[in-house]
Amino acid sequence: VRSDFAMDRYGICPMVQSQQKLDRALVRVQDLTPEKAEQQIWVRARIHTSRAKGKQCFLVLRHQQFTVQALLAVGDCASKQMVKFAANLTKESIIDVEAVVKKVEQKIESCSQQDVELHVERIFVISQSEARLPLQLEDAVRPEGEGDEEGRATVNQDTRLDNRVIDLRTTTSQSIFRLQSGVCQLFRDTLINKGFVEIQTPKIISAASEGGANVFTVSYFKTSAYLAQSPQLYKQMCICADFDKVFCVGPVFRAEDSNTHRHLTEFVGLDIEMAFNYHYHEVIDSITDTMVQIFKGLRDRFQTEIQTVNKQYPSEPFKFLEPTLRLEYKEAVAMLRAAGVEMGDEEDLSTPNEKLLGRLVKEKYDTDFYVLDKYPLAVRPFYTMPDPNNPKYSNSYDMFMRGEEILSGAQRVHDAQLLTERAMHHGIDLEKIKAYIDSFRYGAPPHAGGGIGLERVTMLYLGLHNVRQTSMFPRDPKRLTP
Amino acid sequence: VRSDFAMDRYGICPMVQSQQKLDRALVRVQDLTPEKAEQQIWVRARIHTSRAKGKQCFLVLRHQQFTVQALLAVGDCASKQMVKFAANLTKESIIDVEAVVKKVEQKIESCSQQDVELHVERIFVISQSEARLPLQLEDAVRPEGEGDEEGRATVNQDTRLDNRVIDLRTTTSQSIFRLQSGVCQLFRDTLINKGFVEIQTPKIISAASEGGANVFTVSYFKTSAYLAQSPQLYKQMCICADFDKVFCVGPVFRAEDSNTHRHLTEFVGLDIEMAFNYHYHEVIDSITDTMVQIFKGLRDRFQTEIQTVNKQYPSEPFKFLEPTLRLEYKEAVAMLRAAGVEMGDEEDLSTPNEKLLGRLVKEKYDTDFYVLDKYPLAVRPFYTMPDPNNPKYSNSYDMFMRGEEILSGAQRVHDAQLLTERAMHHGIDLEKIKAYIDSFRYGAPPHAGGGIGLERVTMLYLGLHNVRQTSMFPRDPKRLTP
Repeated sequence: VRSDFAMDRYGICPMVQSQQKLDRALVRVQDLTPEKAEQQIWVRARIHTSRAKGKQCFLVLRHQQFTVQALLAVGDCASKQMVKFAANLTKESIIDVEAVVKKVEQKIESCSQQDVELHVERIFVISQSEARLPLQLEDAVRPEGEGDEEGRATVNQDTRLDNRVIDLRTTTSQSIFRLQSGVCQLFRDTLINKGFVEIQTPKIISAASEGGANVFTVSYFKTSAYLAQSPQLYKQMCICADFDKVFCVGPVFRAEDSNTHRHLTEFVGLDIEMAFNYHYHEVIDSITDTMVQIFKGLRDRFQTEIQTVNKQYPSEPFKFLEPTLRLEYKEAVAMLRAAGVEMGDEEDLSTPNEKLLGRLVKEKYDTDFYVLDKYPLAVRPFYTMPDPNNPKYSNSYDMFMRGEEILSGAQRVHDAQLLTERAMHHGIDLEKIKAYIDSFRYGAPPHAGGGIGLERVTMLYLGLHNVRQTSMFPRDPKRLTP
Repeated sequence: VRSDFAMDRYGICPMVQSQQKLDRALVRVQDLTPEKAEQQIWVRARIHTSRAKGKQCFLVLRHQQFTVQALLAVGDCASKQMVKFAANLTKESIIDVEAVVKKVEQKIESCSQQDVELHVERIFVISQSEARLPLQLEDAVRPEGEGDEEGRATVNQDTRLDNRVIDLRTTTSQSIFRLQSGVCQLFRDTLINKGFVEIQTPKIISAASEGGANVFTVSYFKTSAYLAQSPQLYKQMCICADFDKVFCVGPVFRAEDSNTHRHLTEFVGLDIEMAFNYHYHEVIDSITDTMVQIFKGLRDRFQTEIQTVNKQYPSEPFKFLEPTLRLEYKEAVAMLRAAGVEMGDEEDLSTPNEKLLGRLVKEKYDTDFYVLDKYPLAVRPFYTMPDPNNPKYSNSYDMFMRGEEILSGAQRVHDAQLLTERAMHHGIDLEKIKAYIDSFRYGAPPHAGGGIGLERVTMLYLGLHNVRQTSMFPRDPKRLTP
């Protein structure tokens, strides 16, 4: 047996159990640029691909959205055995390599780090992947059209979701969820700058206050409880408690047995409620400005992520106006009728009509974001304030992105007597909403608000077509795992 | 009947239904300072107190934590009828007043705005309160000791919570929840600056993965599901999906039938998970630095709120060290034994012993915040990484504020084989945690994390004694409302 002169330079590390505090800096893949040329460095990354060729082994190393080429060649540093060891490592394994950064003559088009490669001198496995992956990352990022045309594999949605831990490693997923984190941050930062206070509302509630349909039941010790369909009643109580401007970010539960591209049984609500002085348009203006700040922030800070997603799912850049376009429901009905749609004045918008309206508005006003104001009273919840000038309409509004609803909101009834009348008109059991109505008996400021679906905002901003792409671990009537 | 020359200057407004966009600026109570002297302004506020005295009526107007004195006197602007109207307004009603700001000779000690008062010229009711309040705000902010000594009323906890909308209006509650909003903001801002990504994890889960006890059951269409006891498994999946550093803020559910001062069945978890290079102390350092940034931010930005809460609930300022004190479990056991406590090496800390330890640490090190590291393996969950040097201990830690636990965390087992062994050792059904274990089969970085209870942080920072004071709408085995 010939001895291996490089035997200390490669191998499988014992499981990292915090045995020692190693004084070793690890350079991130994204930081591997020509400025580091000729430096000896350590990198931790996954094996994205591996290809042996004679006495050489080419690896692509990946960390998050970033990739770099690495080379091992039999020579002073590496033995035959070492190159073979590297060539046999399973894809997705995590390794530590010591390497010299080298500038390359020709750009490496297949990697994010195109101007350098790594000449590997040591290679150790930190965590080994099983050889057979449930899906291939290169299949999972292939544009759908390209897959069809060239007869190459793409990955269907259920396979993705069943193996979400792998699917989330793709450049597309990394970008979607980094951008979604940005939506939350921009939403909150904008509101905190406007003087809003963040609140936390309970998700387990004693009564299904908003009518009672579509609500999940929970066993609660010796009794039953429900999962909140929205934080709205609690937001309103905070307004009655003088917090004036509040927001919350949290899960919302809907027991709707509908399997559409835009419904989930659990999603994240970005909720706002705000006392106003004289007119609920003060609140609309605050919300639309918040949305505009989000759109601008995404455009300015997440351009890399947007472009990465567009490679797999091409879409037009998201357009918006300042100030935001506000149309009245009546005008929308007129536009739809002019386009051949037959509908009544007080009829709700169907999903296809919403989408058609989105196209008409885009043509006429060149915006992907607008507010539809003054919905018919009949199609809104009991706590919606009627229009003072026309009892068939109401002080309520929806907001749309690319023709799909992302927010529903209204001025709320802040008068206990009118609220009681409206609840009775809707046939709601007054006993069940007593605590809610009583909140308005001790002085309540006029107020309005709305709830935004986070996953929809991310989906529609990026021009994606299924809300499951923007929920890390989506829940629908047929999916409870992982 | 004598006509009333001032009849246009007072009255009850029609309900604000957004009838008009009134071009009227409203000045906030907190902005009423001597710089505004002699200005004619409009203010919206609640009637905090009202006192008639001959031809005059003294009101205290309140908005959030701020109060100002207002005066109506029979004269050129106000008629007898108008002063009587004002004197009869119910406490907590919301009014708009037009008034001239006047500097006062002597500070008004009973108001937050001590240097000015308002001379009211018009007064209109925006929203009337019922005359009988379920609790009096002045009783609700009275320090408990003072109430006892002087035989004055205080408000017990159930009355407060049953009438939370009123109780939340007190200066103490306003301050507690503004500070709590600040805790969330500081937590997130610090982590985002450190490169963390915010994630959203599902609350409805298919299997009670962490053992199965203390979990709420949900009816989910034709099957059953559970409410997540923590986002931990999902945080870990995100680490396996290369997000590297993640956090989330959201509800956590525990079906524990325990009615203590520090347990809720639903609370807000501030959760962190982070891949590390070689030693889990990298993660401890990140978490303790985050806590220190929170403590500093609260101290620097929320001094008014802290002092307001201290008026009702006196406490010592919160003390912390930089860097944070880290003790090993063994040392804690030795300190407790030296103080006369009898306990075994691998025995868990009881609540009284935790508190005693907190006092001993405070005496010795002068800090209210510290980390206890290296817990006995036997008292930690199955996914806790064993200590590489001593199999009776583990790479796990708790963090304490004023002697009470606010965070529990550990290095997690990131190796599927060891995880399987540990789960079997704990008698856990492997079938139920298959998806979780499988997450580690395709390369997993070493990682650690922890979960923080938001309500406990707020409670202990402010030196309060019941977690229900820092939960807006607390849930415990006996309370599901409001």
